[in-house]
Amino acid sequence: MASSKETRAGSRPPHPLAPLSEAEFARARDSVLGVRGSEDSLFFRALYLEEPPKAEMVAFLEAEHAGLVADDTPRPRRRARVEFDVVGPHQSIFTCAIVDVEAGEIVSRRTAEDEAYPSFTPAEFHVCEKIIIASPLFKKAMSRFSLPDGFRVVIDPWPYGGCAERNPRYMQGLVFAKNTIHGNEDANHYAYPVPIVPIVDWVTKKVIRVERLATGGVGDALAPDDEGDDSGPPKALFGECRAADYVPELLDEPMRDDLKPLNVVQPSGPSFKAHSDGLVEWMSWRFRISFNAREGAVIHDLCYENRPIAYRLSFSELSVPYADPRPSYHRKQAFDFGDGGVGRAANNLELGCDCLGAIHYLDGRLVGPEGSPTTARAVICLHEEDGGVLWKHTNYRTGRAVVVRSRELVVQFICTLANYEYVFAYRFDLVGGATLETRATGVVSVVAIDEGKRSDYGNVVSPGVLAQNHQHIFCARIDPAIDSYRPGHSRVVIEESRGLETHAKTNPNGNAYSVSREVIEKARWVDKEPRVNRTLRLESTVKNNPISGKPVGYQLVAPATQLLLAAEGSVQAQRAPFARHDAWVTGFRDGEFWPAGEFTNQSQAERGGVEAMVGRGDRFVDSVDGHVAVNGGDEDGGRTCGPVVWTVYGLTHNPRVEDWPVMPAETYRLHLRPADFFNKNPALNVPSKRNESSVLVSCCDGTLNGGHKEATVQENPLSHRQGSGLGVDAEDAGAHVS
Amino acid sequence: MASSKETRAGSRPPHPLAPLSEAEFARARDSVLGVRGSEDSLFFRALYLEEPPKAEMVAFLEAEHAGLVADDTPRPRRRARVEFDVVGPHQSIFTCAIVDVEAGEIVSRRTAEDEAYPSFTPAEFHVCEKIIIASPLFKKAMSRFSLPDGFRVVIDPWPYGGCAERNPRYMQGLVFAKNTIHGNEDANHYAYPVPIVPIVDWVTKKVIRVERLATGGVGDALAPDDEGDDSGPPKALFGECRAADYVPELLDEPMRDDLKPLNVVQPSGPSFKAHSDGLVEWMSWRFRISFNAREGAVIHDLCYENRPIAYRLSFSELSVPYADPRPSYHRKQAFDFGDGGVGRAANNLELGCDCLGAIHYLDGRLVGPEGSPTTARAVICLHEEDGGVLWKHTNYRTGRAVVVRSRELVVQFICTLANYEYVFAYRFDLVGGATLETRATGVVSVVAIDEGKRSDYGNVVSPGVLAQNHQHIFCARIDPAIDSYRPGHSRVVIEESRGLETHAKTNPNGNAYSVSREVIEKARWVDKEPRVNRTLRLESTVKNNPISGKPVGYQLVAPATQLLLAAEGSVQAQRAPFARHDAWVTGFRDGEFWPAGEFTNQSQAERGGVEAMVGRGDRFVDSVDGHVAVNGGDEDGGRTCGPVVWTVYGLTHNPRVEDWPVMPAETYRLHLRPADFFNKNPALNVPSKRNESSVLVSCCDGTLNGGHKEATVQENPLSHRQGSGLGVDAEDAGAHVS
Repeated sequence: MASSKETRAGSRPPHPLAPLSEAEFARARDSVLGVRGSEDSLFFRALYLEEPPKAEMVAFLEAEHAGLVADDTPRPRRRARVEFDVVGPHQSIFTCAIVDVEAGEIVSRRTAEDEAYPSFTPAEFHVCEKIIIASPLFKKAMSRFSLPDGFRVVIDPWPYGGCAERNPRYMQGLVFAKNTIHGNEDANHYAYPVPIVPIVDWVTKKVIRVERLATGGVGDALAPDDEGDDSGPPKALFGECRAADYVPELLDEPMRDDLKPLNVVQPSGPSFKAHSDGLVEWMSWRFRISFNAREGAVIHDLCYENRPIAYRLSFSELSVPYADPRPSYHRKQAFDFGDGGVGRAANNLELGCDCLGAIHYLDGRLVGPEGSPTTARAVICLHEEDGGVLWKHTNYRTGRAVVVRSRELVVQFICTLANYEYVFAYRFDLVGGATLETRATGVVSVVAIDEGKRSDYGNVVSPGVLAQNHQHIFCARIDPAIDSYRPGHSRVVIEESRGLETHAKTNPNGNAYSVSREVIEKARWVDKEPRVNRTLRLESTVKNNPISGKPVGYQLVAPATQLLLAAEGSVQAQRAPFARHDAWVTGFRDGEFWPAGEFTNQSQAERGGVEAMVGRGDRFVDSVDGHVAVNGGDEDGGRTCGPVVWTVYGLTHNPRVEDWPVMPAETYRLHLRPADFFNKNPALNVPSKRNESSVLVSCCDGTLNGGHKEATVQENPLSHRQGSGLGVDAEDAGAHVS
Repeated sequence: MASSKETRAGSRPPHPLAPLSEAEFARARDSVLGVRGSEDSLFFRALYLEEPPKAEMVAFLEAEHAGLVADDTPRPRRRARVEFDVVGPHQSIFTCAIVDVEAGEIVSRRTAEDEAYPSFTPAEFHVCEKIIIASPLFKKAMSRFSLPDGFRVVIDPWPYGGCAERNPRYMQGLVFAKNTIHGNEDANHYAYPVPIVPIVDWVTKKVIRVERLATGGVGDALAPDDEGDDSGPPKALFGECRAADYVPELLDEPMRDDLKPLNVVQPSGPSFKAHSDGLVEWMSWRFRISFNAREGAVIHDLCYENRPIAYRLSFSELSVPYADPRPSYHRKQAFDFGDGGVGRAANNLELGCDCLGAIHYLDGRLVGPEGSPTTARAVICLHEEDGGVLWKHTNYRTGRAVVVRSRELVVQFICTLANYEYVFAYRFDLVGGATLETRATGVVSVVAIDEGKRSDYGNVVSPGVLAQNHQHIFCARIDPAIDSYRPGHSRVVIEESRGLETHAKTNPNGNAYSVSREVIEKARWVDKEPRVNRTLRLESTVKNNPISGKPVGYQLVAPATQLLLAAEGSVQAQRAPFARHDAWVTGFRDGEFWPAGEFTNQSQAERGGVEAMVGRGDRFVDSVDGHVAVNGGDEDGGRTCGPVVWTVYGLTHNPRVEDWPVMPAETYRLHLRPADFFNKNPALNVPSKRNESSVLVSCCDGTLNGGHKEATVQENPLSHRQGSGLGVDAEDAGAHVS
C-alpha cells in the first residue's frame, strides 16, 4: 500500500489524516497569533488537524487503496483547527479558526454566538480552584463550619450545568476537605463533602455567590436549612465521616497476597504494526488512529482486506445528569466531551498497569494556554488480548476437535474527569468484528448527608456521605463506508424478527417467523426493541454477497439500555435530546461530530446536535453510481447525503455501597459484526494451535485429573520470552492441535 | 474450614455434595441390577449423586461454615439417582430409582408416565445411524438420488421434536453425505445435505417412514415436490454444492502465519486451590463443583468470605426452535438438556486449546449402557483470566494513578450436540460478582435448497445450502442464599427507575427520578424492561447493610433478548413456556431443576416446568426466624417456600454467510453483582502492581512514543516461568505501581 512507502520516505507529503507535525502545529499557531489586536492576548484551547472534507478524502482514499498514490497525487490541503479566546480588556471572545497550514493562512474564522461557551481546559480547572480558595465570599461561607484538625479545603471545579435562567460563563465548585495529617496528598477528599457550592464568574474571575446545600434525608425539605445570619458558633463538620482511601499506603487493612501474577508473554512480539503517522495494521485490519482534545482517540478509514467498513468511528458525547431534585443539584449534568474533552483529560498510561503483554503507546499533542505544543504522553495504547474460544467444532464420531482462540487488538484510552474515570476502547477481532467498549470507574460523585439519615435521591455509601442517583448516557458516532467510501453506497436498514400467526397455508405449525427490512430513507431516530430483535444493518446499496445474494453489510449489535429519565421539557432533557432515543441516523455533513451540539457548556438546549440534524429532513437515496449530490437540495429543505449513525447507550447508576470509594468498572459493549460482508467465516485460516506454555494444575492432594499422569511444567524458553517486535524472529510457540 | 480437613482424612465420610465415589457408584448400580426381572435387561442412562434434601443440607452447611463439622455430625444420607430402561421382550420402561448407597437399597422408584420419553444417550445416537443406514426403506429413498463418486451417506440423529399427533418414541435423521475421496473422516458432511428425513421407531428399532423435504425457495410451495412413483433416473445431488471444510488439512487456502503466539504465564502457579471432592477456593470465593449427565457442571454452596450467596447455580435448559414452516422442519426443536444432556455431550478438553495458563481439569463420571462407570475425562476446566481494568482512579492534581486489574476464575465446559457447540462458563471476579456466560458456536443446521434459489426461511450460506432461521433460548437456574441458607431469608425484589413529572415542590427542575421496589410475594414471571431499568434484586429478609441501611443483596444484570417467536398455541410454544418470559420466580422444591419439565423429548407441552410451578401459587413470606414451613399449605394450594429464579436469555439466529461452515461464537453474559452486600468495594485490597513482564513495542520505523527511550525486553525469568502450583514458591513478579 502506498501509505507504508509514505511513512518511510520523509520527503513525501504527510497522509491527509496524519496528525499535524510540529512544524505544521507551529505554523497554525503563528498564523493565529499574527492577527490578534494590539490590546488582545490569546488563550489557546485546542489545536489539531482539521480533517479534510470527505469528498476530497474519498477521492484520495480510493486512489490510496488502489495503490495509486504518488507524490503528485492530488491531496486535500493540510488544515488545522485552532480554538482560542481573544482576551481583551473587557471581554473574552471564543474563536475557532481554520488555518491552511501549507499557506500559513487563516481560511475561516468564526466566533461563538452569544451564550455559547467553550469547553473548560485543565488550566481553567486550576485557576478556578485558586479563585475560590482566595475569595472572601467563600472564606466567609466556610467560616460557618469548623473542620477537624489537619483538614484542608479542596475544590473540584465543575461545569455550571443547565439551568432555566441565562448566565455568563460560570463554573461551580464542589467543596471537600482533605485530611492532611498523614501528609499524603492522595488521601481521598471525597470522603469529606462540605455542603456549600461557590459559583465563579469567568468574566470577572470572581466568586459571585456561595450556595448552601440541603443535607437532609427522607421527608426533609428540598431547600437547605436557612441558618439565617451566620451567627452562632461554627458547625463542626464530618462528625461521622470516615476515611475512604484507595491508595495502598493509606488503607487500614493489609493488601491481599493470594493473587498470583499472571503475565501475558508474546515471545515473537505483537502481531500488529504501528506506523508513526497513526496507521495500524493487524491481521487483515488496517486503520488510522488520530487524537484530539475533545474525542480522544478516533479511528479513521477502517478496512478489512482493503475493503472499507467505516470512514470514521468515535466516541462522541456523554451526558451525566444527576437525579437529586434539591436546589443546585439539578445543575449537576456534565457533558464530558463538550464541557471538558476526554482527550484533554486522557491519562498518561503506564507500562504494565493499564494493559498487559507487548504494548505500543501513542502520544497525542495538546496545546498550552499560550499556544505551546504539549505532548500528551502515552495517552493511547495498543495491545492484543486473548478472548477465549472464538470457534470450535468437535466431530463427535471421530473425536477430532478444532478450536480457534479469539484474539483482539485493543486501542484504549482512559480519561479522568475530576472524580470519575472512563476507559474507552476500540477492539478488533479475527472475524471482521469491531467493538466499541466503555468502562465506567473512578470515584462516584457524593454530597453530605446528616448523620443517620437515608435519602430517596441516592445511597449512603459511607457515614455522612450520599452518592446521588444519576445516569451516564453515551453516544458513539459511526460513519459507515460499507465496501465503498462513497456516501451513496451505504445505507441503514432496520431489521426485525417477528412471530407470525398460525396460518393453514403459510405457517401451518405456527413455528415460522418473518425477518422484515425497512430501508431508512430520511434522517430519523430509531429506538431499540428487543421483543422484535430490532437491529440496525449498515449495508451496501451496490454490492451483494455472491453466496447469499443479499447486500454486503454489517449489523450493529447494541443491548438496550435505559434512556434519559429527566422530564420532557426539563433543561436536563432539552440539553441532551440525543439521550432520549437509542439511535439516530442523520445526513452526513463535514465537521458534524457532536450529538448534543458543539457548545454544551452551560447550554439550555441542544444547538446543532442530532435533533437539529434530523430536523433538516435529509434524505438518503440509493445512488447507482454511488455519488450523492452533496449540495443538492430537497423539497423538505434537507439534502441527499450518506447516513451517519449515532448509537446511544447508558447506565442508570443508583450507587451501591460497593461503588465506594472507587467503583468497580461497569462495562458496555457495542458491536459491529459483518453480516454477509464476507463469503465465509473469515477466521477459518487462523491456526488452531495448541498453546505450549499452558500447564496442568493438580488438586491440593496432588492428584491430577484429565487423564494426565503428571504435571508438566513447561520450560520451553521460546514460549516465555517476551518479544518487543524489534527484530525478534516470528517463531511459532504452538503446534497443531488438530 | 472443616471440609479441607475432610479431604485430607480419608476415613471421614464424604461431603454430602461430593460426587459418588467408585464404590458408591458400584453399589448404586448393583442395587438396581438386583431387582430386575429374569427376562429383563437394563439399559443405563444416568447414574449420579442425588442431591440431599435442602432442609438437611442447610443444617449441615450451617455447621460446616461455622467450623463445627466433626465425624459424628449428622449428615444427609448418601443417595444416587439411577436412570435406566427396563428392556423387556415387548417394551422398554424408563425408570428412575433413588438408591441409598450407604444401605445399598432402592428407596424410591418411579417409571415414566406414558408418552414421557427420556433423553437420548450417545449410544442411541450411534445405534440410530446404524438402523437408518441398514434400513430397506431408507435405501429405497436414497436410490432416488445419485451421489457423486466418493461420497458416503452420514446421518445426524435428532430428537423427533414436537408435533401435534402423539407417537411412540421416535428419532429423526438429518441426512448428509461426506466426501471421502481425501480419506479424511473429518471432511464436513454438512456441506452436502440430502433432502429426506428417515424416522426411526425406538420400540421396533426400525425406520418406519422416510419423508421428503422441500428444497424450493421464495414463492415455492411448502410441500416437497411430489415426485410420485420413484420412476425415472436418480436425481444427481450436490450440483452446485461445494466443500466447506474447517479442519486445516482440507482448507483450500494457506493458514495465516501473522498471528504471533500469546502465552499466559503464571510463574507462581494459579491463585486457586482445587480439592479432589469438587471444593474450590479462590481469593475470597469458596464453592463446590459437581457434574451430571444433564446439566454438566453445577455450582453449589457459593460463598464469599464464608457468606453464602447461592445454594446452587446451573445452566438448566435450552430450546432451539427452527422457523422454517415447511413440513417436518417444524419438528426441528431441540431441548439440549432434556433431549440429550449437555453433560453427556461434554467435550474432553485439551491443554492449551480451550483455555490458557495454569489449568486444572475435572473429570466427570457417566454410566455406560450396561451400568459400567465411564470417566468423562477433563470435561471441566478451571483457569484464571485477566480482564483488563477493574478499577482506576487518577488524582488529577498529583497525577497519581491507582489501577487494579480484573482477574476472573473461570469454570468452563463445552458440549457438542451433533453439529453444534455451546461453551458454558461460570466466572467469578474480584468484586464479589459472578457471571454465567454462554457462547454458541459450531456448525449451523442446514438443509438443501435448489440451485440459485433464495429463501424467506433462512440464508443461503453456501451454494445449495440453506441455514434456517432459528432461536436459541436458554434458561439458567439460580437458587439464592443471600447471606443465609435458610429459604425464608432470601427474597426477590423488582427494582425500577422511573422518570418523574416536573412538580413545583418535589421535582422543581424535572431532573428527579424514582427508584421503586416491589417485593415478589407469589410465584410469577417477570419480563425485562430496559426503559424502566427493571432489575431483579435477590436480597436478605433479615440483614441490612450497616452503611446504607438497605437489605444486603445481589442484582441480576441480564440484557434483554428476544423471547420465543413461535405462535401462541403452537406445539413449539407449548413445549417451552419458559421461553416466553424473561424470568420466572418459583417456589423451591427439592429436585426441581427443569424449566421445561423433566421429560422434554418429543413433548407436546411442558409438564412440570416453570409454568406448572408458577401455577401452584407458591408464596414467599418473609420469615423472622428464616424458617419456612416447607410443607405448610396455603389457601391457594401453594406452599410457602424460598424463591428460585430462572433467567431466560437467547439469541435469534438468522444465519450470516460468516457463520459458515463454523460460526464465530456469539456470547451472552448474565451477571450477579453485589448490591449493598459488602461494606465497600471488596477489591480495594487487591494489589495495584505493575506487571513487570509487559514490554514496549516501537513503531515500524523504530520510534518509541510514550516518553520512553528504548524498548525494554524483559528477561526476568521469574515472570516468564510457568508455575503449576506444585510447590513453586509464590513470588510476586510485580512491584507497586502506585
